Amino acid sequence: MTLGIAVIGTGRMGADHVRRIDSVISGARVAAVADLDAERAKAVASGIERCSAHTDPAAAMAAPGVGAVLIASSGPAHEAALLEAFARGLPVLCEKPLTPDPAGALRVLEAEQRLGRRLVQVGFMRRYDAEYQELQRTLEHGELGRPLMLHCRHRNAASPSFFTTEMLIRDSVVHEVDATRWLLGQEITAVQVLRPRPSSHAPQGLGDPQLVLFETSGGAVVDVEIFVNCGFGYEVRCEAVCERGTASIGGSGGLRTRSAGRAGRDIPQDFTIRFADAYDREVQAWVDATRQGRVEGASTWDGYAAAVVCEAGVRAQETGERVRVQLAERPALYA
Amino acid sequence: MTLGIAVIGTGRMGADHVRRIDSVISGARVAAVADLDAERAKAVASGIERCSAHTDPAAAMAAPGVGAVLIASSGPAHEAALLEAFARGLPVLCEKPLTPDPAGALRVLEAEQRLGRRLVQVGFMRRYDAEYQELQRTLEHGELGRPLMLHCRHRNAASPSFFTTEMLIRDSVVHEVDATRWLLGQEITAVQVLRPRPSSHAPQGLGDPQLVLFETSGGAVVDVEIFVNCGFGYEVRCEAVCERGTASIGGSGGLRTRSAGRAGRDIPQDFTIRFADAYDREVQAWVDATRQGRVEGASTWDGYAAAVVCEAGVRAQETGERVRVQLAERPALYA
Amino acid sequence: MTLGIAVIGTGRMGADHVRRIDSVISGARVAAVADLDAERAKAVASGIERCSAHTDPAAAMAAPGVGAVLIASSGPAHEAALLEAFARGLPVLCEKPLTPDPAGALRVLEAEQRLGRRLVQVGFMRRYDAEYQELQRTLEHGELGRPLMLHCRHRNAASPSFFTTEMLIRDSVVHEVDATRWLLGQEITAVQVLRPRPSSHAPQGLGDPQLVLFETSGGAVVDVEIFVNCGFGYEVRCEAVCERGTASIGGSGGLRTRSAGRAGRDIPQDFTIRFADAYDREVQAWVDATRQGRVEGASTWDGYAAAVVCEAGVRAQETGERVRVQLAERPALYA
Amino acid sequence: MTLGIAVIGTGRMGADHVRRIDSVISGARVAAVADLDAERAKAVASGIERCSAHTDPAAAMAAPGVGAVLIASSGPAHEAALLEAFARGLPVLCEKPLTPDPAGALRVLEAEQRLGRRLVQVGFMRRYDAEYQELQRTLEHGELGRPLMLHCRHRNAASPSFFTTEMLIRDSVVHEVDATRWLLGQEITAVQVLRPRPSSHAPQGLGDPQLVLFETSGGAVVDVEIFVNCGFGYEVRCEAVCERGTASIGGSGGLRTRSAGRAGRDIPQDFTIRFADAYDREVQAWVDATRQGRVEGASTWDGYAAAVVCEAGVRAQETGERVRVQLAERPALYA
Repeated sequence: MTLGIAVIGTGRMGADHVRRIDSVISGARVAAVADLDAERAKAVASGIERCSAHTDPAAAMAAPGVGAVLIASSGPAHEAALLEAFARGLPVLCEKPLTPDPAGALRVLEAEQRLGRRLVQVGFMRRYDAEYQELQRTLEHGELGRPLMLHCRHRNAASPSFFTTEMLIRDSVVHEVDATRWLLGQEITAVQVLRPRPSSHAPQGLGDPQLVLFETSGGAVVDVEIFVNCGFGYEVRCEAVCERGTASIGGSGGLRTRSAGRAGRDIPQDFTIRFADAYDREVQAWVDATRQGRVEGASTWDGYAAAVVCEAGVRAQETGERVRVQLAERPALYA
Repeated sequence: MTLGIAVIGTGRMGADHVRRIDSVISGARVAAVADLDAERAKAVASGIERCSAHTDPAAAMAAPGVGAVLIASSGPAHEAALLEAFARGLPVLCEKPLTPDPAGALRVLEAEQRLGRRLVQVGFMRRYDAEYQELQRTLEHGELGRPLMLHCRHRNAASPSFFTTEMLIRDSVVHEVDATRWLLGQEITAVQVLRPRPSSHAPQGLGDPQLVLFETSGGAVVDVEIFVNCGFGYEVRCEAVCERGTASIGGSGGLRTRSAGRAGRDIPQDFTIRFADAYDREVQAWVDATRQGRVEGASTWDGYAAAVVCEAGVRAQETGERVRVQLAERPALYA
Repeated sequence: MTLGIAVIGTGRMGADHVRRIDSVISGARVAAVADLDAERAKAVASGIERCSAHTDPAAAMAAPGVGAVLIASSGPAHEAALLEAFARGLPVLCEKPLTPDPAGALRVLEAEQRLGRRLVQVGFMRRYDAEYQELQRTLEHGELGRPLMLHCRHRNAASPSFFTTEMLIRDSVVHEVDATRWLLGQEITAVQVLRPRPSSHAPQGLGDPQLVLFETSGGAVVDVEIFVNCGFGYEVRCEAVCERGTASIGGSGGLRTRSAGRAGRDIPQDFTIRFADAYDREVQAWVDATRQGRVEGASTWDGYAAAVVCEAGVRAQETGERVRVQLAERPALYA
Repeated sequence: MTLGIAVIGTGRMGADHVRRIDSVISGARVAAVADLDAERAKAVASGIERCSAHTDPAAAMAAPGVGAVLIASSGPAHEAALLEAFARGLPVLCEKPLTPDPAGALRVLEAEQRLGRRLVQVGFMRRYDAEYQELQRTLEHGELGRPLMLHCRHRNAASPSFFTTEMLIRDSVVHEVDATRWLLGQEITAVQVLRPRPSSHAPQGLGDPQLVLFETSGGAVVDVEIFVNCGFGYEVRCEAVCERGTASIGGSGGLRTRSAGRAGRDIPQDFTIRFADAYDREVQAWVDATRQGRVEGASTWDGYAAAVVCEAGVRAQETGERVRVQLAERPALYA
């Protein structure tokens, strides 16, 4: 059964989730959208089959075929939408933050406890990043020993005009807050912030960059460089320093470790790992093209040419000679 | 409209495509499968809604709801299946090789020309690998000038027991054949093979490794190291040497270039690039869990804890002091 | 004129400096050595031409031909030796620390001021490391803007048995103290230390690792991971975060920068840079061998074989053919 | 005893060797120089103590104090100079090529055999490059098994105006000829050259780049990309493909290996390895400055400041507090 989803909020994040569910995700469809801006909701819904548009989140959740809710509205609207979903017993994917303040989060927590079962997944997407997952598995597996420190870098090319010093913590470092708790399986027990003299490229009044320090319940220390006007690009890195080695992500494709006198990375053992995404993308591209009546990608001509070259290659293997490749003339169809 | 696909062949490759279409790909479903081994076909079909099992490819293509064909049977069976699909006007994704020999490929080519329109995409999946695509765009864009050489490495940890010296070309180097033609937009005009004394870790009689050399219609030279018993893992690399620099993939995550006195890589400018896959995976994981009645991922407790730590972080920013984090007691629901 | 040097202290460090001056350094010789252990002093001096051995540093400094002093005795002995050298007007290279305590250092400072001219160079050798020098030049040049933070890692495989928690600062982090002051051209104005729960691989009682934080007179923030029982090796890294990019050393050969959307490194423009050390080493090895009556390295046979292969190579260029190489029989002299 | 050297030829290479022997090399001095251009010889000799200038190589070799000869004249002049040195029984370091042609090389070979002992070292300096030495040791040690292939890259930013297609082999690839023979310990038995359509940035008439292929007596295959107008810089790389893994140099600082499912590098175990060059450079810089009456590098003030910061650091360790650093006022002497 395809899962029908009500998407609450159709701003940048919500609209992107609608697109994702519609054209990337298998087994789900957008059944309803809600936005305070009725025109925007309608515009987003119009491109989707059997998708209704609403201004009231509750109405979207009540729409026919809705079996789950994705909340992507602004932070202050999350609490009401979550409680509404609870009342209907609907599973929720709630974009971070759960709520902007601890008090609201506590009320949601208590409401879910009263239900007696979990309905909410909070959208900390780094837990689904392939590199973070590799790092988490490595730490959990324990081959490097107990983690002692995390060194984190979180850099944006430039901050949007509305960004405030507080948002460095609430909107940016919040990802390292969750990553720290998830990677270490520990709570954060104290926070401290060192503030260098701000970059002259940061907007007036913004204390950027900063060095944020966490202590955790297991005695680990975490430093986070947050720099939202670093100028050169978007970069998220994390190095876990453990008792027997370190493990780093975010630098150059996959997990790098240092241990036992060696620095390096694992080499995949199989093409199904290296090209897994390529196969997925290939078939998705073919399906997308076929549904639109197009044919793309490598053609029959490409298959033919490969066969001729391989034949010449086998002869070259056998003879040790240079073998010329003779192709038929290329038909106009494959021009 | 969801695209119904008949999958011809349910061996390792075919079964993997069935799984992919069923649980990864958006907008498609497996409507029928065919395999000479009736039991295997049935077993594969049994896990899929509205999917029929056949031993005859033609019957699978004729099954209700079939709008396209994916051919993953053994190479010698491709030609007949392709012609059958042509007879029905069905678009085809045909796993490589198109056919094992140039003569068969030529017959398919002629048949498709008689149809007067393209129906076939050949499954050279490297064209859908993110790194190869980045390399192709870079070469096409021309900022490095005309490509002069490609240096290719194609290494497998170990070859299967049935692997022959010919298969080094037909099954392995065939990928570099297509990659060369696609990356350069040129035909291969001559082939030569240098054969070092075989590795003592290669099976008796297998001439492994080899150095395969291509010349192309545009005057480029390509060398391919094929080594299917390299022992250490699976590795595919390619360095394009151009008039004004080089571009390499397969080493350390993404495209690396050398030009104008610098070696390096681009830094993504936006989190939507860096974490695009994480968002896709997050939502897919949530949909998969929800359809099975499970709730996973970051919980309400995680959202609450993040809110409390951020609140402490903002106070730490303001005061310059170390701020202790005080959490409520963790409810059993989130243990 | 060759510079005659008195080396004070012939322990591990002093003996290594004696070897260095004797066999690596151009334009200097060891004229005298002093050590409380007379036997050790004699043993070290015995291998060197015209080198006298002493137990009293003053006597060594007074020995014939001494024009400069290298102090490599234990820290507490430095002050007296420095004042002695001042009395004689001798230039000094003093191993770090200048003195173990600020009071002693202040007395030396005042004594040198009374002389009215500098005689002392303190042995902070990182200022002579090629990577640190590249980093310093980059920061000074200003192309990345003002430095905002330094992230430093200082790791040893294991600490010696006598190592104490204090020595983490005085013996290890002291290098980052100097590097910070030198790289930034600023004084350190405040220090703080975060202490994670110690590694179970650190000796009982040693608070290892630690995160040391500096603030500087120019408003920069510096974090130093000091971990002297990291287990996997010796590693010193430094990343300078500036207003327009970052510059890192210690990871993978030379300076890596991130700026303007690119991460990477400079490529040397000339073989004299890439192989400068090779030429130096080649000639030094030849001189060393010749002085001992040996002939090593590439032989006349190697020169002959290269000539024959090149001749064949030029013919291969001209003909496009495979050209066989025919060598004379290899004489026994070059077996 | 300091070794007196006669340097034959004082062009770019010879003059550089004179500088090297005079100011870098320990235990040797330039005793005489010879150049057809008497003015040039005099100019070079004038900066050196006790160094005579000659136009006749034999006269230079006969000068007082000469114990060895370094030949850096043009290739065609090598044979006569070598025979002259043989006649005097002087050890020779001869810049490559030994002679420009196989016939001349053979005559030198026979002359040295008649002497019955080796006098010549040919200046293939890659044998003294730290990375090549690491690669050679790795191959010799055998942990990766027998070498099967070498992939070599040899790139110059731009070729000088007098460069010819032949010189690609004789002047450039000759280094890979020697490196191949030295790394593998095998002779080259056949050569072949593939010539892509030349780069439009190569001078008219120069066949640049080329792919040069060697076969060796042990059954290895070697490919060399020679590209002397690559535009982006000077780059020399080599990847040895062995039975159980690969080893590469020239990319990112030191030897990288692939084996047993891991790609990576060794981490040095000791600071004496990481900072060996820094110590050498430090002492050489101090000796050079002292001989010229200068004092440079870290001053007494730097030593004092380090002592004060360390004292504060130890207090910060003990208290867990932020500790302010209080320096005395900086004296004018250290401004």
